[in-house]
Amino acid sequence: MLSREDNELICRVGPGTPMGNLMREYWVPALLSKELPGPDCDPVRVMLLGERLIAFRDTLGRVGLIQNHCPHRGASFFFGRTGECGIRCVYHGWQFDINGNCIDMPNEPAESDFRHKVKAVTYPCVERGGLVWTYMGPRETPPPLPDIEINMLPEDEIAIIPSYVESNWLQAVEGEIDTSHTGFLHFGSIQPEDVEEGTFLHYTVKDRAPKYSVVDTEYGTMYGAYRPAKPGYVYWRIAHFNFPFYTQPPEGALGHSVIMNAWVPMDDTHTMSYVMVRKGKSETGRPARLPIQGDSEKYPDMHVPMLPNTSGWFGRFRPAVNATNDYLIDRDVQRNGDDYSGIQYLASQDRAVQESMGGIYDRTQERLASSDVMVIRVRRRLLGAARALAEKAVIPPGVDNPEVYRNRSGGVLLPEGADWIEDTKELRQAFVEHPEIAEQQPQP
Amino acid sequence: MLSREDNELICRVGPGTPMGNLMREYWVPALLSKELPGPDCDPVRVMLLGERLIAFRDTLGRVGLIQNHCPHRGASFFFGRTGECGIRCVYHGWQFDINGNCIDMPNEPAESDFRHKVKAVTYPCVERGGLVWTYMGPRETPPPLPDIEINMLPEDEIAIIPSYVESNWLQAVEGEIDTSHTGFLHFGSIQPEDVEEGTFLHYTVKDRAPKYSVVDTEYGTMYGAYRPAKPGYVYWRIAHFNFPFYTQPPEGALGHSVIMNAWVPMDDTHTMSYVMVRKGKSETGRPARLPIQGDSEKYPDMHVPMLPNTSGWFGRFRPAVNATNDYLIDRDVQRNGDDYSGIQYLASQDRAVQESMGGIYDRTQERLASSDVMVIRVRRRLLGAARALAEKAVIPPGVDNPEVYRNRSGGVLLPEGADWIEDTKELRQAFVEHPEIAEQQPQP
Amino acid sequence: MLSREDNELICRVGPGTPMGNLMREYWVPALLSKELPGPDCDPVRVMLLGERLIAFRDTLGRVGLIQNHCPHRGASFFFGRTGECGIRCVYHGWQFDINGNCIDMPNEPAESDFRHKVKAVTYPCVERGGLVWTYMGPRETPPPLPDIEINMLPEDEIAIIPSYVESNWLQAVEGEIDTSHTGFLHFGSIQPEDVEEGTFLHYTVKDRAPKYSVVDTEYGTMYGAYRPAKPGYVYWRIAHFNFPFYTQPPEGALGHSVIMNAWVPMDDTHTMSYVMVRKGKSETGRPARLPIQGDSEKYPDMHVPMLPNTSGWFGRFRPAVNATNDYLIDRDVQRNGDDYSGIQYLASQDRAVQESMGGIYDRTQERLASSDVMVIRVRRRLLGAARALAEKAVIPPGVDNPEVYRNRSGGVLLPEGADWIEDTKELRQAFVEHPEIAEQQPQP
Repeated sequence: MLSREDNELICRVGPGTPMGNLMREYWVPALLSKELPGPDCDPVRVMLLGERLIAFRDTLGRVGLIQNHCPHRGASFFFGRTGECGIRCVYHGWQFDINGNCIDMPNEPAESDFRHKVKAVTYPCVERGGLVWTYMGPRETPPPLPDIEINMLPEDEIAIIPSYVESNWLQAVEGEIDTSHTGFLHFGSIQPEDVEEGTFLHYTVKDRAPKYSVVDTEYGTMYGAYRPAKPGYVYWRIAHFNFPFYTQPPEGALGHSVIMNAWVPMDDTHTMSYVMVRKGKSETGRPARLPIQGDSEKYPDMHVPMLPNTSGWFGRFRPAVNATNDYLIDRDVQRNGDDYSGIQYLASQDRAVQESMGGIYDRTQERLASSDVMVIRVRRRLLGAARALAEKAVIPPGVDNPEVYRNRSGGVLLPEGADWIEDTKELRQAFVEHPEIAEQQPQP
Repeated sequence: MLSREDNELICRVGPGTPMGNLMREYWVPALLSKELPGPDCDPVRVMLLGERLIAFRDTLGRVGLIQNHCPHRGASFFFGRTGECGIRCVYHGWQFDINGNCIDMPNEPAESDFRHKVKAVTYPCVERGGLVWTYMGPRETPPPLPDIEINMLPEDEIAIIPSYVESNWLQAVEGEIDTSHTGFLHFGSIQPEDVEEGTFLHYTVKDRAPKYSVVDTEYGTMYGAYRPAKPGYVYWRIAHFNFPFYTQPPEGALGHSVIMNAWVPMDDTHTMSYVMVRKGKSETGRPARLPIQGDSEKYPDMHVPMLPNTSGWFGRFRPAVNATNDYLIDRDVQRNGDDYSGIQYLASQDRAVQESMGGIYDRTQERLASSDVMVIRVRRRLLGAARALAEKAVIPPGVDNPEVYRNRSGGVLLPEGADWIEDTKELRQAFVEHPEIAEQQPQP
Repeated sequence: MLSREDNELICRVGPGTPMGNLMREYWVPALLSKELPGPDCDPVRVMLLGERLIAFRDTLGRVGLIQNHCPHRGASFFFGRTGECGIRCVYHGWQFDINGNCIDMPNEPAESDFRHKVKAVTYPCVERGGLVWTYMGPRETPPPLPDIEINMLPEDEIAIIPSYVESNWLQAVEGEIDTSHTGFLHFGSIQPEDVEEGTFLHYTVKDRAPKYSVVDTEYGTMYGAYRPAKPGYVYWRIAHFNFPFYTQPPEGALGHSVIMNAWVPMDDTHTMSYVMVRKGKSETGRPARLPIQGDSEKYPDMHVPMLPNTSGWFGRFRPAVNATNDYLIDRDVQRNGDDYSGIQYLASQDRAVQESMGGIYDRTQERLASSDVMVIRVRRRLLGAARALAEKAVIPPGVDNPEVYRNRSGGVLLPEGADWIEDTKELRQAFVEHPEIAEQQPQP
């Protein structure tokens, strides 16, 4: 559990909050590049860390992220005219470039220099791997982008699944770093005899109460969850939390799986998740009837159906399976044991539990168990880093060390008595190919 | 009128409020038995006294009422798996029985005894007369159920009409104990010459300003409203308020009518009403064109049309005739005098006035008249009892005396000069049959 | 910009606020006469200056405006029975006349005189020019109605276009007294060569950064915006702000145009606008493809499509082109330059910018320019008058001087060096016909 004070501190991310300040030290994903399909395309409303922003692409193709309200009299730039390398408020024609400079003020006399005194809040943006990244922090020169492998691959090898979550970002992160729920929420109905012996999934459903080892790292926190495997071997599931809101779940085989999930706060009670996986290479040990979010080409029918995007502040990437329809829970399927939750789609199962906790869960009411050791450790690191920044201006983990993000997660069999940290060092390195892994590792 | 302080005190019923504490001394109706149709059926969201609860029926058919959020990490039990004599959170498989014991914690190591340290908030439930009753109070051993006659009849003799009201519970109660409005809101358009002479309704519409006698009782408050009847006789309408939220309106003939209405707060601004009448025996003096809520077999087309239930917190038993459609008021019918309000259905008429007062009416703005003497007295009793409990731990009326609820209400002709209290004692007794009453009393 | 304190003071208009008190010194338009089509017609919910009121027309055809909640127990008069020269609450039949007197209290004994002690809040109403005017202020005898010319013409010469705006009233007023936006939001796509030389519009689009002259007046504030016209001439656009919320924009030719727009606060974040123009005589210099709000006979297809009225507090005169559909912005039209905003209808363009500022715009964030001189001056006058009333009981401008409203606005060509105030005195006088004006002035 958390005290009320700590729960507030860790959850709230608006301007001026300690956790909001921590997140603003990093580059954060703002939207998908393809949401701004070309120069001078339609602007997009973006809610980010509690701020209302308008994203646009200028005539040169550069992305701008500007305050919603025109600095002049407050009309929204959403209705703005793009073109001529800027965005122009339709109220009086004031035009701003992606750096917030007022480059035209046509309703003022020609001799006026007032436009040089007016600046709009904009945040610098760069694009990489299908994402528009932005830096909302205090530095004049932003830090480097994090070395997130999946985001640095050639764009045609990356699959991104964006999804809107109606809860605080931490509830989503905690669901992802919580390997214990996998054997229940997702695979609780699968019996060991249903699965081919020797596969990861077989070990998972044979022992649903694994033990855990958790260590702090330069980039955040890492856990290994372990349980018995074939004689003489232990099955390890190794996964990461990366500052400030990234997770690398243990899907697929360690050394082979390239994945990163970002849980970006829109505001305190809404989150945009970006699941990023390698196209055609991220097979996991999951049985086919439990579709995963992932490669849109390989698993065309495994995606949660989505509502059409709207232009609203919370209109992007809304799953059609959501709280308003109880996630289409099928009570008969749940009851007869065909599926543990009765909810189709892994991602919907996660959202059902996370969102049902409410906008911000009151963590004074929790009773944490030994399986929550990773959750506990990550909270402690986040709170510690937010306080260190607020009180002693300590730069948070990884901000100036992009290379610490070069990690991989996944499952692996290690001999009994092996040192899980030392002996997986190479497999955990990003940007290293292990073509043999996919064959060696026991997939279902 | 009430002071702002008294109005807050009497209306608010959440955990820890004085009126909430008073209500928690009693058993309260939580939902209908048939909403949980069988062992291990689908759970139901129940909002009760400002608490979010999940109702379920276990494998043995026993009803459980458990806190919405799993004590572990807060996922809602609404998505829980029923079966094996409990409800199991789908997040990590923790299973609880109807008493709140954690009976399985499958993601913890076998040797862990942590499950014995975790308890969920549950409220004991019993079923009687088609209702699930629950006790949300502080006692280890709850008090007895109240001896409410209609709730103790064989179930096939009881008709229950549940209905959701969008206002504070007290506005609904006050509408029910207010016999004065009957001659206007419900029967204002009926002229004495429209009704057969000698019937109750004839006297009612002939004199719309009766006099009142009000007395405090062991169970709450009783009134007799009286007006001239046939020569030498007085027509008395005798009705009850029973602690903490029950009303017995004067429908039908005293000694014959068996009725109890419960106005159960869902939260401070939403109420669930349960109207309970005897099937096939509760004819009243009301004219046919003004259908009443009541016996669903005798009056199949007299019920307010209902929207389909949803699984939402406020999705149960919603009238289709409601504020969003102005209660389908027909202004021409209202204007031409065919009906006083222009609103079809007695129950919709009541809801129109009660709900139009707003969620919680500001009673500092009232101007009470002599016809409000019952309303005034009931408020005083409720406030007194809530304060006595809060300040001196005085057990509220009837909590430990179930027999005080054994009352009947209704209309009766008494000779002029009769003692209305003394002379109706026998007719007011529950569980006594007076087969002659239906014939003796002047029905329309 | 305004300080937070001034912004609150100038925007909020509920009972007891300084600006609310200022507005209550004046007669204010409450609704259209035709919304109450005849004696004893259906009542109408009216939200006005933050108060919920029920408008009705009594048997003699007189308009009443009564508090929503019956003084007795709070049921809404919306469900009340009209007739017998009053409105009767359907709960207990209490009947009130348009002056708030309780004229019948039928559920009290005949001998009771309680009805003489009960009074409902009502506001006196008069009808003129298609509007129902009401006085919500403290005087026993209200001041005279303002001499608003367009409201005093024969009713068949007046066109009124009512329209609901989802923002604070001041945002709407500021949009109207801001002539600078015309050349951008409305005519930004029109090039000088598109328009016949010598017309007002030609001068407007040829010079989009006019200069301004602003003067305080007895009724409020007047501006003249000026720019070069044909050789030796200056094109002046002269317009007025009239206390407390009226605007006379410079549409059409000065001396010919008869117009008044009222921006009546429903509450702090919703406004009802009444645009009033002379039927068949208010041609302006606007090109046909940009329809204006105005004369419904001459420009039948120039009106913003409206949603059907509902009986809700905010259900009257809602444009179908609104924030929920992004004002049907057509990005291609905006981009290709066919229209500056891509939004059809002048009125929708105004609403898009005003409403996108939010319910109450935070004016601490503004950067005002020289083109905002009228906005600045009007705010100062409003703040000054509200403070003078609050602190020194100074009667606000025009309250007791109805004749100060006798003004006209519009465009005019004056010789270079002319005194725009002195030399337009006659043309600015209301109630004076200048039949030659329509021909003399350069229409497009």
